[in-house]
Amino acid sequence: MPFTYQYPRPAVCVDCVVFGVPRPPSRRGRRRIPGLSVLLIRRLREPFAGRYALPGGFVEIDEPLEAAARRELVEETGITPVQLLPVGMYGDPGRDPRGRTISAVFRAVVWKQEHPPTAGDDADAAAWFPLRRLPALAFDHDLIVRETWQSLRRAVRGGPCGAELLPSEFEAETLAWVYRAMLGRWVEADKLLAQLQRYGLIRQAAGGQKDAAVGRYRWNPASYRKQEKLGFDGLGLGL
Amino acid sequence: MPFTYQYPRPAVCVDCVVFGVPRPPSRRGRRRIPGLSVLLIRRLREPFAGRYALPGGFVEIDEPLEAAARRELVEETGITPVQLLPVGMYGDPGRDPRGRTISAVFRAVVWKQEHPPTAGDDADAAAWFPLRRLPALAFDHDLIVRETWQSLRRAVRGGPCGAELLPSEFEAETLAWVYRAMLGRWVEADKLLAQLQRYGLIRQAAGGQKDAAVGRYRWNPASYRKQEKLGFDGLGLGL
Repeated sequence: MPFTYQYPRPAVCVDCVVFGVPRPPSRRGRRRIPGLSVLLIRRLREPFAGRYALPGGFVEIDEPLEAAARRELVEETGITPVQLLPVGMYGDPGRDPRGRTISAVFRAVVWKQEHPPTAGDDADAAAWFPLRRLPALAFDHDLIVRETWQSLRRAVRGGPCGAELLPSEFEAETLAWVYRAMLGRWVEADKLLAQLQRYGLIRQAAGGQKDAAVGRYRWNPASYRKQEKLGFDGLGLGL
Repeated sequence: MPFTYQYPRPAVCVDCVVFGVPRPPSRRGRRRIPGLSVLLIRRLREPFAGRYALPGGFVEIDEPLEAAARRELVEETGITPVQLLPVGMYGDPGRDPRGRTISAVFRAVVWKQEHPPTAGDDADAAAWFPLRRLPALAFDHDLIVRETWQSLRRAVRGGPCGAELLPSEFEAETLAWVYRAMLGRWVEADKLLAQLQRYGLIRQAAGGQKDAAVGRYRWNPASYRKQEKLGFDGLGLGL
């Protein structure tokens, strides 16, 4: 049954940029910057059949955008992240050879090893790829990955994050590991802890060790939720 | 001529949240928090005829999203801002009584007095309204305004801003005025200047006064562009 409209309409789809953080190794191995991975699928159908792409697909007519992203991600990779955050909209004419297609993009961060992908639906393969060595992607997905990583780093620098990966009580070194992975650069654990404590985001867990960097901490959910809305007071002005 | 598709398609539109900053008054009058305004139009047609709404409309099939936002804004209000930034997409089923409509939302900040609106196209009125006393809006535009103001404040706290409003050389007090308006709260000019100088975003203009708060400053475009991408180092870690 065809659907008819008075004016031409773009197709609307969703795409997911899922970043994978590797599991922290033994204590000694933690003195490095962990590499982030990106979840990709190999396209079974044209256009770009055989090419890797972000998991995604068309939005159902009665489906909220986030629900569509979650559904496509499960159908194509078997993976369900805790949190999918809206990143932006990609709608340049010409980005899809089938015609005008506008994509709502979402991002997530998960523990890589806890989410082994299994290909399904429109994908004949689904796998983690190192962010720094991605294959050439279908559509404008190279641009989407680049800009979404930028948005992740901006979010990490500008507000609370990490609660979707860590349990309510966690080791200081694990938190620093997650930050290093998301930012792609070295972060000193003791400085990070001091700053997050200053913002009231974490506090030392009962019976913790004296050495802050190897101690155990807990999130402060009230501060976390509050600062998630407006971000840090980046100018140190009490703004 | 009707357009026919195999599956039903949502309509895609754009909406603009344009914030207006009042012109700074005489020096004495500057010791207060200026109120931000929002640009609204009164809808000429159903749905929500007679109700106020954000300027916006449907995207042409061959038109980039930002171009559509700019075009609708000019058609309905006569206003063209320097900069339109993407904010997000609103696509919940049920947000538009005509059927599924997905909106890409953009924001801008302009000097209110330099942009007097003139109603046109689908609008029979266009006017500035105080952000704190908006009328009940059409569709989910109340939510969009609230969340877009949140996104503006997050941007102000997390990275450089204001260059779209100020000339290359400006008075310290004018910069502080703009910050107060965008954040809706008091900001001390001398603290703000010190922090922005620390981030290398501004420098004192040649021949400036000794008193930092009343002196003249210039943007540093290189730092500005660089920090615009990734935001401030909000944790003070050199991240």
